[in-house]
Amino acid sequence: MAIDILLVGSVAYDSVETPSGKITKALGGSATYAAIAASYFARPGIVAVVGRDFGTKHINMLKQRGIDLDGLQKDSSGDTFFWAGHYEGDMNRAFTRETRLNVFERFDPVIPDSYRRAPYVLLGNIHPSLQLRVLDQVRKPKLVFCDTMNYWIESEPKLLAEVFKRVNVVCINEDEAYQFCRTSSLPKAAEELMKLGPNRIIIKKGIHGVVMFGKNSFFSLPAIPLRQVKDPTGAGDSFAGGTLGRLAKARSVNDNSFRRALVAGTVMASYCVEDFSCRKTIKLTKREIDSRTRQIRSFTRIP
Amino acid sequence: MAIDILLVGSVAYDSVETPSGKITKALGGSATYAAIAASYFARPGIVAVVGRDFGTKHINMLKQRGIDLDGLQKDSSGDTFFWAGHYEGDMNRAFTRETRLNVFERFDPVIPDSYRRAPYVLLGNIHPSLQLRVLDQVRKPKLVFCDTMNYWIESEPKLLAEVFKRVNVVCINEDEAYQFCRTSSLPKAAEELMKLGPNRIIIKKGIHGVVMFGKNSFFSLPAIPLRQVKDPTGAGDSFAGGTLGRLAKARSVNDNSFRRALVAGTVMASYCVEDFSCRKTIKLTKREIDSRTRQIRSFTRIP
Repeated sequence: MAIDILLVGSVAYDSVETPSGKITKALGGSATYAAIAASYFARPGIVAVVGRDFGTKHINMLKQRGIDLDGLQKDSSGDTFFWAGHYEGDMNRAFTRETRLNVFERFDPVIPDSYRRAPYVLLGNIHPSLQLRVLDQVRKPKLVFCDTMNYWIESEPKLLAEVFKRVNVVCINEDEAYQFCRTSSLPKAAEELMKLGPNRIIIKKGIHGVVMFGKNSFFSLPAIPLRQVKDPTGAGDSFAGGTLGRLAKARSVNDNSFRRALVAGTVMASYCVEDFSCRKTIKLTKREIDSRTRQIRSFTRIP
Repeated sequence: MAIDILLVGSVAYDSVETPSGKITKALGGSATYAAIAASYFARPGIVAVVGRDFGTKHINMLKQRGIDLDGLQKDSSGDTFFWAGHYEGDMNRAFTRETRLNVFERFDPVIPDSYRRAPYVLLGNIHPSLQLRVLDQVRKPKLVFCDTMNYWIESEPKLLAEVFKRVNVVCINEDEAYQFCRTSSLPKAAEELMKLGPNRIIIKKGIHGVVMFGKNSFFSLPAIPLRQVKDPTGAGDSFAGGTLGRLAKARSVNDNSFRRALVAGTVMASYCVEDFSCRKTIKLTKREIDSRTRQIRSFTRIP
């Protein structure tokens, strides 16, 4: 079965500690979170690499969610990408304790033939040169959605600008938008980013929700207020995956489809942070997704 | 003509410097900003004090906006409350250079007989003991709306809790809510505040907009994205005044009226920050207010 969404990013093991507890070597990675979130709406395929320690259990878990793994490379020369870190207080920021790139250091994102015509592409948060490598291999996608992070903004701003020139949507954290554009005005930052090429800029603001700037449009959506956040890891990736999944399902990329898609992304991110790793997002029901979708509508309704 | 809204707070002169410029001894104060914003929707009356330096020009300016000044005391023994400060970068925070309380130091909020039956009461950001003095004088208001600031949370938390027990709505900044409730969860903070008595908590988040918690409801509204903020002074007061004004106009305090009222407050705050002092809010047209009201609706619409 052909995939709807090509997802390129990391598949990882994470050890995370937060005020709510801790987990050791749990499934993580940007492509993992995004694929799981997208899988509730469309068929995603992952291009990533795992090492010799990657368990069959996790392969099966992803397959059972309808995620295509033909693009998942296995490199037996080393272990899977490993990240350890913790969050404090309001958990707005991750503190890294250890990063072992392992097999990810030699990752070459080769897109399988069966993935090259995928209509939707999510360039997860990886080195901009790898994101460009992916863009060289895909064939006329309907929409390319690009995520990034402060690390690449600081170390590879020029290469990142090259990526932005070739994508339709840039999805970025608020602080990163300010940092990349050297401004403290969000409309100005969005305008500068759009000048590079993308026609939509989605800015993630954590507990303050998300805003989307288009060429002549603006949309703002709150996050769902949660009584307890256990682990924020993967929230941004779940958001991106849910958003792209919902767009793929709609088979349309107009403003209305994007608005509905951001709601789906917000719902997936809200479930993601309520438990460690992908414990909660891996086993959601349609009922749970629908319920929070209705909630967001009621939270934002102006009579 | 009877007033709809009793506003108690400060009338002041401000000297402000921001990255966009500066003003010297311009009209300011919480009651001033709130009254001007409210005046577009209903008839407000101010209880505050001014000194011997307060100009007839400013009295006339306020009167021309339909603001009742029977409760404005003149104390010729000193000058009007004076504040000087500046803002930097994203202007999220005011740095105080100088505060001269002047006649405000001896301010006793005596409510004129003609104001005591005002259906809507806004307790502006003044000492909680003065807020309590006001509550002792009013007669069965339909709704009491209370604003405050970090200064009172730090110095008078117990007295402030006494005020909260006797009001219907607490309007507070996000950081202040965390500070008062010693939590980093907004739903928990709102719940704790409601336990004291109020049935609605409105939390101001600056450029991230505003959220409202009710006993069984939640509403989130974004701020209007502005290309240039000249001076954030008075934004919170303009928001409170606009909100209460719109509620008074609706003569109803249900969830729908509150949602519409928060839109009006947001519109007034957005105009406030686009120029120094109340230069912009003093001379708005219905057309301008309607236009931004429509904008917010379109910015938040989920298709």
